[in-house]
Amino acid sequence: MTDPEENAPVSRLLAASEIGIVAPRDFVCTRPFTFKSGQVLPGFTLRYETYGELNATRDNAILICHALSGDHHCAGVHAADDRKPGWWNNLIGPGKAVDTNRFFVVCANVLGGCVGSSGPSSVNPETGRPYGIHFPFVTILDMVRAQKLLLDHLGVSTLHGIIGGSMGGMQALLFAIEFPAFTRRVLAMATTSRESAQAIAFNEVGRQAIMQDPDWNQGDYAKGGGPRVGLAIARMMAHITYVSDASMDRKFGRRKKNPASGESYTFDIQFEVESYLRHQGQAFINRFDANSYLYITRALDQFDLAQAYGSLETAFAPVQAESLVVGFTSDWLFPPEQNRQIALALLRAGKRASYAELATDLGHDSFLLESEELYALIRGFLERNQATAVDFSI
Amino acid sequence: MTDPEENAPVSRLLAASEIGIVAPRDFVCTRPFTFKSGQVLPGFTLRYETYGELNATRDNAILICHALSGDHHCAGVHAADDRKPGWWNNLIGPGKAVDTNRFFVVCANVLGGCVGSSGPSSVNPETGRPYGIHFPFVTILDMVRAQKLLLDHLGVSTLHGIIGGSMGGMQALLFAIEFPAFTRRVLAMATTSRESAQAIAFNEVGRQAIMQDPDWNQGDYAKGGGPRVGLAIARMMAHITYVSDASMDRKFGRRKKNPASGESYTFDIQFEVESYLRHQGQAFINRFDANSYLYITRALDQFDLAQAYGSLETAFAPVQAESLVVGFTSDWLFPPEQNRQIALALLRAGKRASYAELATDLGHDSFLLESEELYALIRGFLERNQATAVDFSI
Repeated sequence: MTDPEENAPVSRLLAASEIGIVAPRDFVCTRPFTFKSGQVLPGFTLRYETYGELNATRDNAILICHALSGDHHCAGVHAADDRKPGWWNNLIGPGKAVDTNRFFVVCANVLGGCVGSSGPSSVNPETGRPYGIHFPFVTILDMVRAQKLLLDHLGVSTLHGIIGGSMGGMQALLFAIEFPAFTRRVLAMATTSRESAQAIAFNEVGRQAIMQDPDWNQGDYAKGGGPRVGLAIARMMAHITYVSDASMDRKFGRRKKNPASGESYTFDIQFEVESYLRHQGQAFINRFDANSYLYITRALDQFDLAQAYGSLETAFAPVQAESLVVGFTSDWLFPPEQNRQIALALLRAGKRASYAELATDLGHDSFLLESEELYALIRGFLERNQATAVDFSI
Repeated sequence: MTDPEENAPVSRLLAASEIGIVAPRDFVCTRPFTFKSGQVLPGFTLRYETYGELNATRDNAILICHALSGDHHCAGVHAADDRKPGWWNNLIGPGKAVDTNRFFVVCANVLGGCVGSSGPSSVNPETGRPYGIHFPFVTILDMVRAQKLLLDHLGVSTLHGIIGGSMGGMQALLFAIEFPAFTRRVLAMATTSRESAQAIAFNEVGRQAIMQDPDWNQGDYAKGGGPRVGLAIARMMAHITYVSDASMDRKFGRRKKNPASGESYTFDIQFEVESYLRHQGQAFINRFDANSYLYITRALDQFDLAQAYGSLETAFAPVQAESLVVGFTSDWLFPPEQNRQIALALLRAGKRASYAELATDLGHDSFLLESEELYALIRGFLERNQATAVDFSI
C-alpha cells in the first residue's frame, strides 16, 4: 500500500476528534512457536498499538490487520510534532468510523515484518546476527496465529471485529476460519482468496530485483544495509500496482518536472511521475527490510484458501462471523471480481455475508480512501446489532 | 512486445505459403543526419528486410514498423533449420493478410536500436568504442525520417501502406503526418498518441533497474556486456504489461513448477509464471542492448502528438492517408480508449479514418494475435479500392 501523505497540520492531529499521541508496545511470547512450515522459534515478539479501552466483558476489541508494507502504527501520532499519523488515521479515532470511544482497537506488525515484530531482520540469538533468510518461512496463517496469542495476552475474550485491506483482508478471512468462535465480524477489503498469476508475477519481479542486487548477499547483511537499489526498484514497481492509470493521470499526467526547460534530451527525471516514483522508492528503503519484503510477498503468493482447504466453500465452513467484503472498481491488483467471489463463497457456505462494490478511481489503495461512503459502510457494519442484522443479497 | 514462440515445425516455415529464407541487408546512409535534438551524425545504418517485389510503378510498398523490443526480422526464417520465424510471420507472406505476392514489404530496425541499425551499441568512429549514452537522443520522428530515407533508397515512390502496433503505431501515425503525399494508408494498432502517466511510470522503473545496476557504468560497457541483471528485471516487468491478467491466468494460473514436491518454503521458483518470467528476462539480455532500451523507452515517453503540434486535430491536419486504428479490449498498456481517440481526432480533422475494437484477452500484444478476424480486417483495409472506400463511422 502507499504511504500516507505527510501534510496533516499538527494541530489537527492533536484535536479532540483524534487519538493523539500513542506509543507502541511489545508483546514478547516466550513459548515456542511452530510455523506452518514446521520450523520452530523459541519465542517471538509482536510490536503493537492499542487505542480505546477494553470493556468489562472484554468483547469490544477490533483487530486491524495491515497490508504488505504497513505496520502496527495505524492511528494517532508518536509525538506532538509528528506530522505523519498512522496509516489508517482517517478511519480510526474518537467518533470516527472505527470509533475508539466504543471499541478497543489493536494493530500489530505482522510476524515476519520489520517494524519491531520478529522477522528476518531480528537478531538470531544463536549467531548474534540478523536471521536473514534463516528466519522461518512465514505464511498468512502464522501471522494470524501470532496475533491470536497477542489478543489472548491482552485479555480479549471475543473479537467484535477484524478489519483488513489487501493482505490485511487475507488475515481477516483466515482468522475467522481458524478462530470461528472468537470472531464476530469480518471486514475484508480489496483482497483476494488467492493471487492471480499477474499478482504473483509482479511480486516475483520485485523479489528478483532484490535478490539479484549484489548487496542482498544471500540475505546476509547488516541491519539498515542490504539491497537498497533492488528494494527501491521493487517498491517503485509495486507502487504502480497500488494505484490506477486514472489516478496517476489525474495526479501527474504528462507534466514535466521543469516545464520551463522545454524539450530535454536526457535520462534524468523529466516527468513529475518519475520524480514521485523515485521518492517512493527512496522513502521505502529507509523504513523497510528487503528480506521482510521477500518473506511477506511469498506469504501473499502462497495464500490460497481453496487449495488449502479443498474449496472456498469448505474453507469457510467453520466461519461463525458475519462478513462484509468490499471491492473497488478501479482495483486491478485484487479486482472487484475476486472480492465478490469471496462473498459468494461465504453465502454458498451458508454464512451471513454481504458484498459492496465502491466506484473509485484510486486503484487497489482505495481501501485507504477518505470516503464518507466507505466510512458509513464500515460504521454500519460494526455498529449494527447482529441479532437483527439483515443479510444483503448480491 | 513478447517474443514469438519457438515451436514452429521447420517444414511449415519452408512451405510454399511461407516467405521462406530471408536475409537482412544494411542501408548505409553516408549523408549527415540531424536528429530532432539538434545533434548530428555523419551518417547512419539501418538494417532491414524486404519480402515480395517492388512493382513497376513503385507504389506497392508496405512499411512495417516494429515495437520497443522488435526488429527488422518480421517474417520468414534466416536459415533452413531456423525454428523461429520473424515476429509477424503469421501476418506477412504469400497469400497472407499482408500478401507478399502483391506487396513489397519493408521492415527496418529502428534508429537507436541494437539489431544492426545505428544506435548506442554502435561503435563511435571517434573513440573506437560503443557510443553508449553519447549516441544522439532518438525520438519517434528520427526513426520515421530515417525510414523515409531507406524507402527513397529502395526506389519506393509512394507507400501503399504503413503498419505498426504499439510503438510501431506511433511511427505509422507520424509518418503519415510528416510525409503526407507519400503515404496512402495507415494502420495503427494497440497504440497511443501519447503515453499515460502509468506507462511512463513502468518505463521509468525499467530504466532505473538498468541505470542503478553497477554494470551499467554510465552507459559505458563493452558490446554484449553491461547491466544484464537490470535489463532482465526491466524486461520481466515490461512483459507483464504486454499481456493480461486473464491470459496469464489461463496460461499459468497458480500452477506450481514442481507440484509433486508439495508446499515448498523457498524463494526459488515455485510457480510456473515465475519460471516463465525469468526465462523472458534471460532470453532478452542475450538479444537486446540496455542503452537501446533506455533510448527507445525515452522515445516512447516523449511521443506526444498533441503537445508537439498544438492539438491532435492540428497534428493530423496534413494527413492524406486513409487510416484504420485498431484497439484491443484487454490492452491495459495502451487501452482501446486511447486508440479510439486517435481515430476520432482524425475524423474531426476531416480525414478518412476508421476504428475497430477487437475483443481479445491477450492484452497489449493482441496485435500479434493469430486471429482470422484481425487478418480479414487488415486484408480488407489494404486491398480495397481507395476511390470507392466507404468510411466507417465510430
